[in-house]
Amino acid sequence: MTADAGTRDDTGGRPVVPSTGRLRPLGLREVRITGGFWGHRQTVNATATLEHNLSWERRVGWIDNFAAVVEGRAGRDRRGREFSDSDVYKLIEAMAWEVARTGDASAAASIDELSKVIERAQEPDGYLNTAFGHPGQGERYSDLEWGHELYCYGHLIQAGVALLRGGVDSPLADVALRAADHVCATFGPGGNQGFCGHPVIEMALVELYRVTGERRYLDQAKLFVDRRGHGTLADIEFGRAYFQDEVPVREADAFHGHAVRALYLAAGAVDVAVETGDDELLAAIERQWEATVARRTYVTGGMGSRHMDEAFGEDYFLPPDRAYSETCAAVASVQLSWRLLLATGDVRYADLAERTLYNVVATSPADDGRSFFYVNTLHRRHVGPLPAADREHPRAESAVRAPWFDVSCCPNNLARTFASLAAYLVTADDDGLQVHQYADAVVSTRLADGRPAGFEMRTAYPSDGTVVLRVTETSPAPWTLSVRVPAWAADGAVLVEPSGARRPVGPGVASVTAAFAVGDEVRLELPLHPRWVRADPRVDAVRGAVAAEHGPLVLCVESVDLPAGRDVDAVRVDPAAPLTPDGDGAVLAVGALASDVDRDWPYAADGRDAAATPARIRLVPYHSWASRGPSTMRVWLPVLE
Amino acid sequence: MTADAGTRDDTGGRPVVPSTGRLRPLGLREVRITGGFWGHRQTVNATATLEHNLSWERRVGWIDNFAAVVEGRAGRDRRGREFSDSDVYKLIEAMAWEVARTGDASAAASIDELSKVIERAQEPDGYLNTAFGHPGQGERYSDLEWGHELYCYGHLIQAGVALLRGGVDSPLADVALRAADHVCATFGPGGNQGFCGHPVIEMALVELYRVTGERRYLDQAKLFVDRRGHGTLADIEFGRAYFQDEVPVREADAFHGHAVRALYLAAGAVDVAVETGDDELLAAIERQWEATVARRTYVTGGMGSRHMDEAFGEDYFLPPDRAYSETCAAVASVQLSWRLLLATGDVRYADLAERTLYNVVATSPADDGRSFFYVNTLHRRHVGPLPAADREHPRAESAVRAPWFDVSCCPNNLARTFASLAAYLVTADDDGLQVHQYADAVVSTRLADGRPAGFEMRTAYPSDGTVVLRVTETSPAPWTLSVRVPAWAADGAVLVEPSGARRPVGPGVASVTAAFAVGDEVRLELPLHPRWVRADPRVDAVRGAVAAEHGPLVLCVESVDLPAGRDVDAVRVDPAAPLTPDGDGAVLAVGALASDVDRDWPYAADGRDAAATPARIRLVPYHSWASRGPSTMRVWLPVLE
Repeated sequence: MTADAGTRDDTGGRPVVPSTGRLRPLGLREVRITGGFWGHRQTVNATATLEHNLSWERRVGWIDNFAAVVEGRAGRDRRGREFSDSDVYKLIEAMAWEVARTGDASAAASIDELSKVIERAQEPDGYLNTAFGHPGQGERYSDLEWGHELYCYGHLIQAGVALLRGGVDSPLADVALRAADHVCATFGPGGNQGFCGHPVIEMALVELYRVTGERRYLDQAKLFVDRRGHGTLADIEFGRAYFQDEVPVREADAFHGHAVRALYLAAGAVDVAVETGDDELLAAIERQWEATVARRTYVTGGMGSRHMDEAFGEDYFLPPDRAYSETCAAVASVQLSWRLLLATGDVRYADLAERTLYNVVATSPADDGRSFFYVNTLHRRHVGPLPAADREHPRAESAVRAPWFDVSCCPNNLARTFASLAAYLVTADDDGLQVHQYADAVVSTRLADGRPAGFEMRTAYPSDGTVVLRVTETSPAPWTLSVRVPAWAADGAVLVEPSGARRPVGPGVASVTAAFAVGDEVRLELPLHPRWVRADPRVDAVRGAVAAEHGPLVLCVESVDLPAGRDVDAVRVDPAAPLTPDGDGAVLAVGALASDVDRDWPYAADGRDAAATPARIRLVPYHSWASRGPSTMRVWLPVLE
Repeated sequence: MTADAGTRDDTGGRPVVPSTGRLRPLGLREVRITGGFWGHRQTVNATATLEHNLSWERRVGWIDNFAAVVEGRAGRDRRGREFSDSDVYKLIEAMAWEVARTGDASAAASIDELSKVIERAQEPDGYLNTAFGHPGQGERYSDLEWGHELYCYGHLIQAGVALLRGGVDSPLADVALRAADHVCATFGPGGNQGFCGHPVIEMALVELYRVTGERRYLDQAKLFVDRRGHGTLADIEFGRAYFQDEVPVREADAFHGHAVRALYLAAGAVDVAVETGDDELLAAIERQWEATVARRTYVTGGMGSRHMDEAFGEDYFLPPDRAYSETCAAVASVQLSWRLLLATGDVRYADLAERTLYNVVATSPADDGRSFFYVNTLHRRHVGPLPAADREHPRAESAVRAPWFDVSCCPNNLARTFASLAAYLVTADDDGLQVHQYADAVVSTRLADGRPAGFEMRTAYPSDGTVVLRVTETSPAPWTLSVRVPAWAADGAVLVEPSGARRPVGPGVASVTAAFAVGDEVRLELPLHPRWVRADPRVDAVRGAVAAEHGPLVLCVESVDLPAGRDVDAVRVDPAAPLTPDGDGAVLAVGALASDVDRDWPYAADGRDAAATPARIRLVPYHSWASRGPSTMRVWLPVLE
């Protein structure tokens, strides 16, 4: 089929639009971030990251690859990893959301140019990939384990969906539809019974079904989800668990294998479950999410604790110093949490999204939006080699953000997340509106019965715990304004009603139902004092250590705040002593610096350090680490013995 | 040159024969193990492992590769990894020591057969490798980073040296000499300025110099050591530190990069230092050894804490659950310790060798000598997939020993170590004999002045702490009989002199100088009670946990000793309560089993487990783990809070 205006979304565009579910998402015309913590990041993304990513994709040849296909020189000239097409698509998706959000002319022009280059590379039957299927290259679909062809379509289709929903005119939407039709024709019930080593096409196809109403896209997504887990793909060095092909999706106990793959697959499974009414599948993903959060998630919300295969570790295997916690896994986790929140209305999913956004997604980019962490370790012992400004960087080996990577999914995943972030803040249901994330923003929508409803949200969060919701649009009948109270705010949160009445509220949802007048204010006051947390005692890697949190932020210590020559590994803290503010979001802890004398043999009856010297230890928000130059860093701090 | 009878070694053969040094090694005719812990392993090695390894090398095609070269079909038919030749050579070395030790006719026949097959594959100019240099293969030396050609020569030369020193007649000795001459001609001062990504040829060439007196072999070894560390090899994904090419050998702070490579290189550097009088180089390796032992060594003596690149981790990075602790790294560590002991006489090197032998080398093989651990983790959370008996196994993913691996250096490295183990027990100096490792053994040699000296060593060690040295050969003038007192025996060791006088002795060396008579006994009594140790507080991964030791043995808990359905991760112990013997080398600790209830979110103000139930915890020798069927296991046990 061909995309037409009827597929456009008058909400301004939403990444995920389930046809059913407990909550309804709002679009970029309905929720706009106006400033603050996230507004700053949206601006940096729009003014720096989009252009930065585009210029790197040109420089490393990923865009020329499409022209190389057209000109018959792909077998010789193609550059980059086999999945580099997907990053061009992810960047177009980011630009599409940016155009939808602000009408950005430069992004629109880039979409136009890129779309034309890509369109020419598509084969008449819809096949589109620069790494396979041309002279001097491998056959189409000859390497489903590693070839990433269907993965690339997934990102192409997501870009197409963003263009359609965002009302951005581009031939790429039709390219995406042709590719989707080609996939259905090739991998349908009577076709190739394989699927991609890297999931993402599942959720892309469901969203395309939601945009177009074409059932075959949903059916194909369901086929891909159901085919997985029966040992169809080859048994690679990392084992089939790497790409979740060793156990069917609905039978797994927890997310496992390559973290980004696992989370994209789970998100696609939720989409399929919601659209097909498969409650068993939805419950399976919820159960896996619970187990993963309880046993396989870092205090930052980060996921993935194995470098070798970028994978989830075993239960309670969460070494801070080998945390992989890939930026893309955090993006995928937020996407999954959002789907589960919409389906169930359970704000525990928004709790995890908040933690992940503030402590992984916000950690990855530098303040200027032109360099990034690919992995988000919780402990860096050595500064390591510094990334060169002028070349691609390996993924996991520096204490300094790098401008680009040989695998550069993260910068583009961040770009599309920041550009569309407003769509993840607020939802609607039959009774009113629900605030899930706090930000300076304006909200303007209609309730299920068509009545207008809107409010302005003002907050200095996360620096301050007060969030004010001021009603800007309403109607005579009552409706409900709800706000999430984070699980970390278990003690002392207060909801102030328009009447001025103060009501203690616990974690979960706090609501006011009223016949609101314009100007009415609902205020949430969160108790924002720094606190220590300890891990479940089964987390071996941080036994005897504590981490500090401040509101939604995880804190860390950096070597730049220590006496010269001392390193973060010398830090010991006394969690019985109070944490005190030290300005600019920093906090002071009472502790000590350990001695640095070697033992001949490091194992002995007495493990204590008798020569530690008392010290005040400065802690800063984890997301800001490495912004003051190369530094070592750690989140989990050993308790002074 | 050609090997002749003049190169034979009338000691019965020794792996390492420095021309100078504080101590002199003894050969397989001078020290014979007669039973006990190590005698049993030597017998299993001789009667099972040698044949097992040979049959697997036939089965997986590594031996046929040599015929494939001769028959011009190597480009098409060659099987196995690029370094598989080296494993055939290591097995021949093991068989050579076995023939030297016992005259084993079957091993001699196998050497004969293999040598003929290999000899035919050598090119006229001495080049010999089945993976390069033939039609359909890469050019000779076109991939020094990964090609392993010089590494294979290293093992070929070590096999040749073993044949020459062991007095085993084989054409392979000449093959090795021709290969060494080819290496000197190709990589000498005016030739190819490269070196091998995997060290080992350095120590092989020095030993060949020691056998033949040909100085050019030593010079070539020195060239290889000196060339390293200047960024000559390509910058691979793991970085040049992987193969120690980022910093010159003498400038490094500690052993780093791939552990086996690092340790083989250090051993070769010691050999070069000793033969060239390069005290600075020797001191550098000693300093690196000290730093590595203090900061980068597991309580088992195991080395290597990174799976991804089989490498040493950063200082104090010693996660028990991701311990790589490759069997071959332990063999290499013992080889290095032995060289440093001979050079310096410092028994701390023998201390580490003992720990490594009992807790890594003895751990790897199954009791029947037909399956092996490639990695020797200190914590196994899940049993994982069980290795199939009939195919090669990946290296690091099971709680059960596997019969063979795609990379099978470990089974062959064990075989050559066990076959030659007697040569690592006792040394001589101008004043007498020194016992470094305890075993049932007979020793018969001559002192530096030619006087006969010998003794019988009897012990049930490590089950019992008494070691009796009964003089069997002596002469009228006094000489000195010394015995190492391990560092772990700091409290209560006693030396009983022939007179019956009892003398408390501390860690280090205990000696008796006397005009011994045949039948005189020197007795060492070591205090063999189980004990808890804690790690240096900088070892993050085992903070708040203790490990139990018993004599030289590290202990562990296995799930087979826990109530049904409970896992080793539930174990908590009280190190203030006494450890009590429980028969068969097992020990009982006082502790508890933790509750197994998940938290919604695993990080909270209180990290304690209020629902743990008291329990007695059974600990067994780590080297014996997984011998009672699949089990989970851990060495470091969390302290009950």
